[in-house]
Amino acid sequence: MSKSTSADRLVFVPLGGCGEIGMNLNLYGFGLPGREKWIIVDLGVTFGDASTPGVEVIMPDPAFITERAKDLLGIVLTHAHEDHMGAVATLWPQLRAPVYATPFTAYLMRDRLAEADLLDQVELHEIPLRGRFTLGAFDLELVTLTHSIPEPNGLIIRTPAGLILHTGDWKIDPNPLIGETIDAEALMAAGEEGVLAMVCDSTNVLSEGMAGSEADVREELIKLVGEQKGRVAVAAFASNVARLQTAVEAAEANNRAVCLVGRSMHRMMGAARHVGLFADARPFIDEEEAASMPKARVLYLCTGSQGEPRAALSRIASGTHRHVKLSSGDSVLFSSRVIPGNEKSIFALQNALAAKGVNIITERERHIHVSGHPCRDELRQMYAWARPRIAIPVHGERRHLVAHAKLARELQVAHGFAPRNGDMIELSSAGADLVDEVPSGRLHRDGSVLTPADDGSLRMRKKLAFGGVISMALAVDEKARLVSGPEVNFCGLPDPAHDDFAQAEDDLILSAERAFKSLDKAHRQNERAVEDVVQRAVRKTASGIWGKRPHVEVIVLPV
Amino acid sequence: MSKSTSADRLVFVPLGGCGEIGMNLNLYGFGLPGREKWIIVDLGVTFGDASTPGVEVIMPDPAFITERAKDLLGIVLTHAHEDHMGAVATLWPQLRAPVYATPFTAYLMRDRLAEADLLDQVELHEIPLRGRFTLGAFDLELVTLTHSIPEPNGLIIRTPAGLILHTGDWKIDPNPLIGETIDAEALMAAGEEGVLAMVCDSTNVLSEGMAGSEADVREELIKLVGEQKGRVAVAAFASNVARLQTAVEAAEANNRAVCLVGRSMHRMMGAARHVGLFADARPFIDEEEAASMPKARVLYLCTGSQGEPRAALSRIASGTHRHVKLSSGDSVLFSSRVIPGNEKSIFALQNALAAKGVNIITERERHIHVSGHPCRDELRQMYAWARPRIAIPVHGERRHLVAHAKLARELQVAHGFAPRNGDMIELSSAGADLVDEVPSGRLHRDGSVLTPADDGSLRMRKKLAFGGVISMALAVDEKARLVSGPEVNFCGLPDPAHDDFAQAEDDLILSAERAFKSLDKAHRQNERAVEDVVQRAVRKTASGIWGKRPHVEVIVLPV
Repeated sequence: MSKSTSADRLVFVPLGGCGEIGMNLNLYGFGLPGREKWIIVDLGVTFGDASTPGVEVIMPDPAFITERAKDLLGIVLTHAHEDHMGAVATLWPQLRAPVYATPFTAYLMRDRLAEADLLDQVELHEIPLRGRFTLGAFDLELVTLTHSIPEPNGLIIRTPAGLILHTGDWKIDPNPLIGETIDAEALMAAGEEGVLAMVCDSTNVLSEGMAGSEADVREELIKLVGEQKGRVAVAAFASNVARLQTAVEAAEANNRAVCLVGRSMHRMMGAARHVGLFADARPFIDEEEAASMPKARVLYLCTGSQGEPRAALSRIASGTHRHVKLSSGDSVLFSSRVIPGNEKSIFALQNALAAKGVNIITERERHIHVSGHPCRDELRQMYAWARPRIAIPVHGERRHLVAHAKLARELQVAHGFAPRNGDMIELSSAGADLVDEVPSGRLHRDGSVLTPADDGSLRMRKKLAFGGVISMALAVDEKARLVSGPEVNFCGLPDPAHDDFAQAEDDLILSAERAFKSLDKAHRQNERAVEDVVQRAVRKTASGIWGKRPHVEVIVLPV
Repeated sequence: MSKSTSADRLVFVPLGGCGEIGMNLNLYGFGLPGREKWIIVDLGVTFGDASTPGVEVIMPDPAFITERAKDLLGIVLTHAHEDHMGAVATLWPQLRAPVYATPFTAYLMRDRLAEADLLDQVELHEIPLRGRFTLGAFDLELVTLTHSIPEPNGLIIRTPAGLILHTGDWKIDPNPLIGETIDAEALMAAGEEGVLAMVCDSTNVLSEGMAGSEADVREELIKLVGEQKGRVAVAAFASNVARLQTAVEAAEANNRAVCLVGRSMHRMMGAARHVGLFADARPFIDEEEAASMPKARVLYLCTGSQGEPRAALSRIASGTHRHVKLSSGDSVLFSSRVIPGNEKSIFALQNALAAKGVNIITERERHIHVSGHPCRDELRQMYAWARPRIAIPVHGERRHLVAHAKLARELQVAHGFAPRNGDMIELSSAGADLVDEVPSGRLHRDGSVLTPADDGSLRMRKKLAFGGVISMALAVDEKARLVSGPEVNFCGLPDPAHDDFAQAEDDLILSAERAFKSLDKAHRQNERAVEDVVQRAVRKTASGIWGKRPHVEVIVLPV
């Protein structure tokens, strides 16, 4: 329990982002225990993969703060990446608090709110870079950092209990191409003022050195594009606006026209132009015009670097893209990293391109990607600037958070705390104290509905994926006689034409009949009893044939 | 068609390994077209992952050669890795040909044949290193190479149509620790004699330089183990016997006793000792003895480097291993690579270890792993030794094979052919000609049965994983009246307690009833017609509720 139950206290509660990279949801509370007023910093999503079949989008379960929505002062967004703002439009109806963001982020936020038909309801405040504003006891000041998207902000959060530096996502890029360099002065000034706690990005804590500068990528990409004779496609994350700028410069330096391919590429470019970026770029050309250009005069800027099947590059590779064709002698430059879990889909994409004779160049061969997150030397620098009393690593899996806390200790930070989602941590001059564990979890966007990740439906679907399903039905009359069935359907099991399965249907029906007949009359009239005994018998018979236990559904119809 | 339909010809037919790394199956045929005699070189498996739920082992479909089993002269194994010999025990009953292998491979093969109760039936010939033997028109000579397992052999295959160098898996390790260095003399002698075609490993063709020597790993691992104060666990592939030797030397150099953990570690060590390896090693200790040793005096050699849930290391990380416990201050050294597709399970394992305070060191931080396959400089050397007329890259995905063929062209090889599984390639002084495409595919070990990968069952299970299943049953009497049901069960859909699903059961039943009633009397008595109309209606209703289309099974019981 808290040491200070009768006085105002400052607490930090991550509901997402501690245990995974992505899906950030940070809460700060200030007030008497149990009567805190809250702010949310970032409200993001993460994406499903082969381990979550049928689920494309995953977000933190906000139940803890939803129940306290009347005490929620605002939702502050540090920057416009999906893992920091992707859940706002979905979860806002449960939260109904004003949203604060800088112009670029606000522009994209409005887009999403409009899609969700929420634009009229949400109070969206546009804060200028370096802006300062107040939410209850929280005095917030934006600090300009560097990252792979325009307007990455750290937050200086001044509270009566002390000053928090919440970094958001950052790196130290001496030449970021887009936006200003990191505002070291503001960070040092915060250090001078006294940072009680720094809540800091852990993504690259396992990597020594520096993330590297976008300027180096530009130099290499200009050179690399110059070496190509055919069409060039650059695959990059659309949200990596600095990289889009780099690609545009590489095109112009080599007298190639730029053609954007992919919906999110156009969307992100719209936001970038909105804040004045790409003002000097030559006009882009559309896909039809690009198709008619000499091969050496065009550079496609494409989505789909992760092998996403519906994105531009996968459609180009499979030859199903309407206007963009690549063939022997053309090149695809993967100016992006491989997100863990996407290897197989990326390699499938690269195999399809290789089969067409397209050259593939990745960051393995040439220096055409840098990370947007701080490596260890950058973290060391940040700790030197901010000199926090307490280090709270966030934005990482367990192994990152633990390694980050260890690094902070080595840097003489007095207290470190590697949190888990749902930890309520009191921050005070005495250090970081775990004062409570609050409900946390994940929500799945499953079809059109939001479901708790642990409602059992995904686990059941994985069971079906493993063993398929056998459906049985039988009709029982009022005298407990089996008057029709058992009938059997199976799906997800080997083809009945398979030698071992030729007799399967008969065997399954026979085992169901025997199971039914093994019951006395009273139990035969009990639907549940019939279902149970048939289910067990059929599962066992199936297992004998197949060596695996399928799911068995039994329906008893009384007639 | 072949240029030489009326004369003997030499053909190469890969049925596995061209399009994937793993699952090798190579055929060589010699004779009149359609009347060839065949040899199989290697017969391996690959392993399932999240993209093949319910399938653990995958192998090439051998149908083409099974149908020609009477003309199959023998099965030759280059080495004992699963992707080269893992399918022999399963597929041998269809092939029934003698098997040829060197002593270490033969030892492990006998183990597997005994498990499959085939030991008495299979004629297994043990060939010495550098041995030479004849199978019909094929005169085979083993060449000792270097790789990550003892006794890696290349094959010199002399035929009346010319000499083939089939490399198998190899690298150039000047100091392999286990076994001899690569037999450059034999390779050069083959080059002098004249190599018509080289069929060669493509795994690392995308990597510049050399794979690196096991001796460097040994040096680093000795140093690294010396830096540790707690228990040390080295995670490695059990089949990487050179690495086991390295780990044993690192333990002995630091006065730690070795304890093997994991079944395949013991199995592989048995085979290694059988061929005289580890004869000078100090006795290993068992898990119970290790548990009672001072922490700094023990080194565990563990399976499970890929995060396999049932392997030793995962059980240690979850605290469920009976004898082996790791805690704060202990270290796990991952002396292994990350196999693409395994990232998430490996990271989950590392997160569990980090949560215990265990130090994690991987090849990212320290030089404690080298690949067993040739990088580009090694390939260049091999081409310089063998000087083949034709380059046939195998053992790779499409992108590897294409890059390898390109490299061969750069090295002035006259002809190159990057094959696909099922290509029948005639090899002659005129070059490599695609003369036929024969059936190829994959078999899944699904439960206890072998199924064609494309029999639809896996696709159906993935559909179930995406959308779950709704089972419905209804009873219809001879007058076409609905006398019981429709009843509905659903699984894999959101919990019925979910707001959006509270009415789902009623809605689904209602839509099924309406669909039934929409039919005229004749169709109501047609089970198939009822099933179809109900299935369509229910799927549509479910989609309206959920935004996804589940699979719907309908059973109509006539009463």
